Amino acid sequence: MTSSADPISTVSQRLESFASDRRAEVADLGAEAVDFVDRALAAVAGGKRLRARFLSAGHAAAGGSAHDADIAGVAASLEIFHAAALVHDDLVDNSDTRRGRPAAHRALEDAHRRSGWLGDADAFGRAAAILLGDLLIAWSDDLLEDAVDGHPRASDVRRQYATMRRDVTVGQYLDVAEEAAWATAPDDDHAARALRVASYKSARYSVQQPLLIGAALGGAAPAQREALAEFGHAVGLAFQLRDDILGVFGDSSVTGKPSGDDLREGKRTVLIAYAREAMDEAGRADLDAALGDRALDETTIARLQRVIEDSGAVQRLEGEIDRLAALADAAIGSAPIGDAEVATLREIADAAIRRTA
Amino acid sequence: MTSSADPISTVSQRLESFASDRRAEVADLGAEAVDFVDRALAAVAGGKRLRARFLSAGHAAAGGSAHDADIAGVAASLEIFHAAALVHDDLVDNSDTRRGRPAAHRALEDAHRRSGWLGDADAFGRAAAILLGDLLIAWSDDLLEDAVDGHPRASDVRRQYATMRRDVTVGQYLDVAEEAAWATAPDDDHAARALRVASYKSARYSVQQPLLIGAALGGAAPAQREALAEFGHAVGLAFQLRDDILGVFGDSSVTGKPSGDDLREGKRTVLIAYAREAMDEAGRADLDAALGDRALDETTIARLQRVIEDSGAVQRLEGEIDRLAALADAAIGSAPIGDAEVATLREIADAAIRRTA
Repeated sequence: MTSSADPISTVSQRLESFASDRRAEVADLGAEAVDFVDRALAAVAGGKRLRARFLSAGHAAAGGSAHDADIAGVAASLEIFHAAALVHDDLVDNSDTRRGRPAAHRALEDAHRRSGWLGDADAFGRAAAILLGDLLIAWSDDLLEDAVDGHPRASDVRRQYATMRRDVTVGQYLDVAEEAAWATAPDDDHAARALRVASYKSARYSVQQPLLIGAALGGAAPAQREALAEFGHAVGLAFQLRDDILGVFGDSSVTGKPSGDDLREGKRTVLIAYAREAMDEAGRADLDAALGDRALDETTIARLQRVIEDSGAVQRLEGEIDRLAALADAAIGSAPIGDAEVATLREIADAAIRRTA
Repeated sequence: MTSSADPISTVSQRLESFASDRRAEVADLGAEAVDFVDRALAAVAGGKRLRARFLSAGHAAAGGSAHDADIAGVAASLEIFHAAALVHDDLVDNSDTRRGRPAAHRALEDAHRRSGWLGDADAFGRAAAILLGDLLIAWSDDLLEDAVDGHPRASDVRRQYATMRRDVTVGQYLDVAEEAAWATAPDDDHAARALRVASYKSARYSVQQPLLIGAALGGAAPAQREALAEFGHAVGLAFQLRDDILGVFGDSSVTGKPSGDDLREGKRTVLIAYAREAMDEAGRADLDAALGDRALDETTIARLQRVIEDSGAVQRLEGEIDRLAALADAAIGSAPIGDAEVATLREIADAAIRRTA
């Protein structure tokens, strides 16, 4: 796979072949086990395959050639790990939908009801989804090993992968904690705290680490790694700031999530922190009272969208995104990375930052 | 570490040094992150260190010498993985206590209340515990890599470890599914279904795989592996059948779990399947109605204990445990394993099977 080839189809083929092996493995264990594995496979379907793209671009930027490593295998591993993170994240956030379909715990809950099983379908869905995420994590390791075992830079790749896993998990915890703890922190600290979450949960996880894992596999020189780390963090942060905006203003038919979902979930994003900074006491109190209310109706969502827009927070965030994009550009522009590879990096970064879903 | 040395203190030292590295790593991320890491460390404390013992014994049985591999590192990894499994398992089973202390999700829920944080403390505890388990899984991989990277048999160890992770996760799912699905299966199938869960969730996970991971690290010959696999599965199954009995009849001051906990949780164990097989329709209906009722009082628990005892199921299970112990004995008695190592294996097996907690 070269950096210019579309990594999606190769990764999808890899995931499908892995899938059929796993299904064969549990065939003797009965219908429940097969169904469990099938649900895990369904969780991997779809998505932007963003990590696979950054991984591949990082590998190419490091001068890795298309044939010296199993990029598609590592990418498939990242995608399965991401599917695991989403299954657990949807539980953590109590989200009902993902990629336009029911979240895994909701799908498992439905299956419980349809099977005429005993007990609380909701509790079953949640319990089964915890284990589904765990199975996907185990699979991601299996795919990683299949891809790197015996490769001269395997240790380096594993170390980078491990860092990614720790970062995202701590970041997700900080995110959850912030939804509960924000009120105990001074108003002036909110943006910095939200940026910290965005750095760990998103910037490192979604962009920087996939790039650096690819770079490790490609045998990157220190200067290349440094440039990719700086580029990746800036792009990743901009990616998350875009997500903040889409989480409040996104078109549900494009994002696959209900419009204003971040408001119902009470997410303490940079966008919210900026909006609060621009508001008076009464405005803040009004916003704080609404955030996290699962029952927010369309009218209230529309009103909150207007309030946030009017605060100037969106404009400020767009400015921040532009600043980060320029920073990212500069980081790779002066690095020892080939022109074609720089062009690819810019193209993927732009797609991640300018997206509407 | 030799097979005769007590692996517990070495493993505990390893866990503590790993712990302080992790704490240092997140120090800059603020009090919430440090607290999260501290809770993960607390989840690893205590326990029987059963897996560490079997791992060490498997390594020695394969002829591995005390200095050719980092057994303590692999054992610490297994113990952290087990801590992760317990954190998620307590969520899945909605258990309030673990090792005589509040389960992780309950401890996190309490922390939320004490901090005066916003929102639903119970939901926070559950969300944070999902992530806590994920962090522990990531750590277990880190420790494994630290221990085996560069070792000539590292690939073999990783493969065996990966099998363990898949087996236990599928087994836990089958366990959860069985609590909901048992009524849709013919009465005659219940024992076989419960044995399938016990095989995956316990026998393989708690005994067989730790032995085989140790054996892989020690470079076991095929005949040694086969003997250890057979021995381990029999011991592990007996271990679980003992657990079935303790889960209903155990002394809570020794087990650290409320007496009769399995009855409140509605666990569909081999013990319950045997009891039902010996009962008439009315007896089954009575037992089925009570199982899984979280509010069961002490009097009802005592009555159910008597009913199960009177069915002859406990006696039948004890007979089964004896049969498995003899099978295990025979498997290693005739294998190419040294006398001292066979003695150690028998000793640990006996402790696992005859335990009261």
